[in-house]
Amino acid sequence: MDFKKELDKKVSEAEQIIRSYLPKEEGLQTTIMEAMNYSVLAGGKRLRPILMLETYRLFGGKDKVIEPFMAAIEMIHTYSLVHDDLPAMDNDLYRRGKKTTHAVYGEAMGILAGDALLNYAFETALTALNMSPSPQVAEALQILAKKAGIYGMIGGQVVDIESERAGSGEKTDDKENLDTILFIHEHKTAAMIESAMGIGAVLAGASELEKEKIEQIASDIGLAFQIRDDILDVTSTTEELGKPVGSDERNQKATYVSLKGLDEAREDVEKISERALGILASLDVSNPFLTQLITALINRKK
Amino acid sequence: MDFKKELDKKVSEAEQIIRSYLPKEEGLQTTIMEAMNYSVLAGGKRLRPILMLETYRLFGGKDKVIEPFMAAIEMIHTYSLVHDDLPAMDNDLYRRGKKTTHAVYGEAMGILAGDALLNYAFETALTALNMSPSPQVAEALQILAKKAGIYGMIGGQVVDIESERAGSGEKTDDKENLDTILFIHEHKTAAMIESAMGIGAVLAGASELEKEKIEQIASDIGLAFQIRDDILDVTSTTEELGKPVGSDERNQKATYVSLKGLDEAREDVEKISERALGILASLDVSNPFLTQLITALINRKK
Repeated sequence: MDFKKELDKKVSEAEQIIRSYLPKEEGLQTTIMEAMNYSVLAGGKRLRPILMLETYRLFGGKDKVIEPFMAAIEMIHTYSLVHDDLPAMDNDLYRRGKKTTHAVYGEAMGILAGDALLNYAFETALTALNMSPSPQVAEALQILAKKAGIYGMIGGQVVDIESERAGSGEKTDDKENLDTILFIHEHKTAAMIESAMGIGAVLAGASELEKEKIEQIASDIGLAFQIRDDILDVTSTTEELGKPVGSDERNQKATYVSLKGLDEAREDVEKISERALGILASLDVSNPFLTQLITALINRKK
Repeated sequence: MDFKKELDKKVSEAEQIIRSYLPKEEGLQTTIMEAMNYSVLAGGKRLRPILMLETYRLFGGKDKVIEPFMAAIEMIHTYSLVHDDLPAMDNDLYRRGKKTTHAVYGEAMGILAGDALLNYAFETALTALNMSPSPQVAEALQILAKKAGIYGMIGGQVVDIESERAGSGEKTDDKENLDTILFIHEHKTAAMIESAMGIGAVLAGASELEKEKIEQIASDIGLAFQIRDDILDVTSTTEELGKPVGSDERNQKATYVSLKGLDEAREDVEKISERALGILASLDVSNPFLTQLITALINRKK
């Protein structure tokens, strides 16, 4: 089967698992369930659940215990988008061609739907303790929480907002700017990839060394993905990318490319990608689909 | 020791435990830690952690495993206030005489501080699995998550917002109005009391029957507390209460009192309170301070 077809199959598979964990729309509070389900089902590549499941399979995982975690990480990812879109944040009325949650349900319900998804993610993941009250599940729960919080995704989001508001004019020190950009990429993006792949590895019983390697691979994927994003914002056309390009320059936003230049940014993406794929190849186990997926993510043209 | 002095001591004790679990203010994302700590330390009676600890002690609990849960439930309570105060919700600039979180840190950071507290509550509670990876801790984690979410606090908040916005004019059916009010009180307020006392009971190893009794007591406390709130809004003066009275009538808000009348509301509070204290007295164990605290909560004059 070619990669594109296999990927479509994996997306459907993840989609079905996620759906099965969404709340029933019932009771006096039914609006909140509707808003949650609208948000989760508004689309998305289901990248984090797929990376989680394929890393789990890489290490021989075969049980259903992975499923509540797949649903939970997608709920966390979705809540972060719902809150990002709020008027006080990015103020977006559309995402992937669909109205954002607050645009449909109002701002108060947008806030509450995000809260509800974050809370429900933990409700969902905690059901794994009923399936298997093992130290692995405990560790996976702790990874899920930590990588989403102030030492992970939220931490990155905070620094991103603060550095946008400070404007590019304030920090003239390129070294400091670059440290900030790396911090944002590592926390806002890479942390949730580390969560996805880390949970997959832990639940499948990977060794300490294997878990460390997976964490490095995930971190590299996240960073390469974001540097590629900065590159595409400069080199691509709006048509190719399917979203407006050049926005970073217009917003006078310091990026990896504006600080290191296009050539060096490209070289760095290559180096980081090669390192990730090299570590993946050094493992005693393999999952050809996972290798293809990671390669596609790093080399994406949009 | 008289009750007031003992209560002050218990508040300090809870305060100290909560503080010890707050995040250190450090790193590039330090603003978010500051906003979280500001929110938690802005005051409050620490009612939920105290009810949790005293219920734990009621059933003979003596370990530190209760502590992360005490901190976690206060973080969840705090996040709900931070988000309630946002412009899109109640739009409050002051709470307990202090500026609200978004008034100090801005709206975006107010949203993120709430998110961060909710997430950190689970990070904190999950550390209990390292202290004791027992089925009791798993059950306590599940109670914490469920009672805070769409089947608990958030569910009540959603219905409260929707019924406020619908106005009192729409629903002319008193029976339906009363069901809605009971739903809101049971979910928005009682659920978190049930969480606090339920977790205390579970972690101390209470039996199934004891856990059921505690759930009923907690539910009664929450309901009695809220009906008392409706009564005080009518009968008290602004001076006595320390906050504006008569706001429900001004807002044309249907309340327990407006639907059942003052006399019947008073009788119901008496009945519910007596039931709660009766069940508490029927247990084989006792904690005089807990009995006094519950009595004080139900009979409060402000």
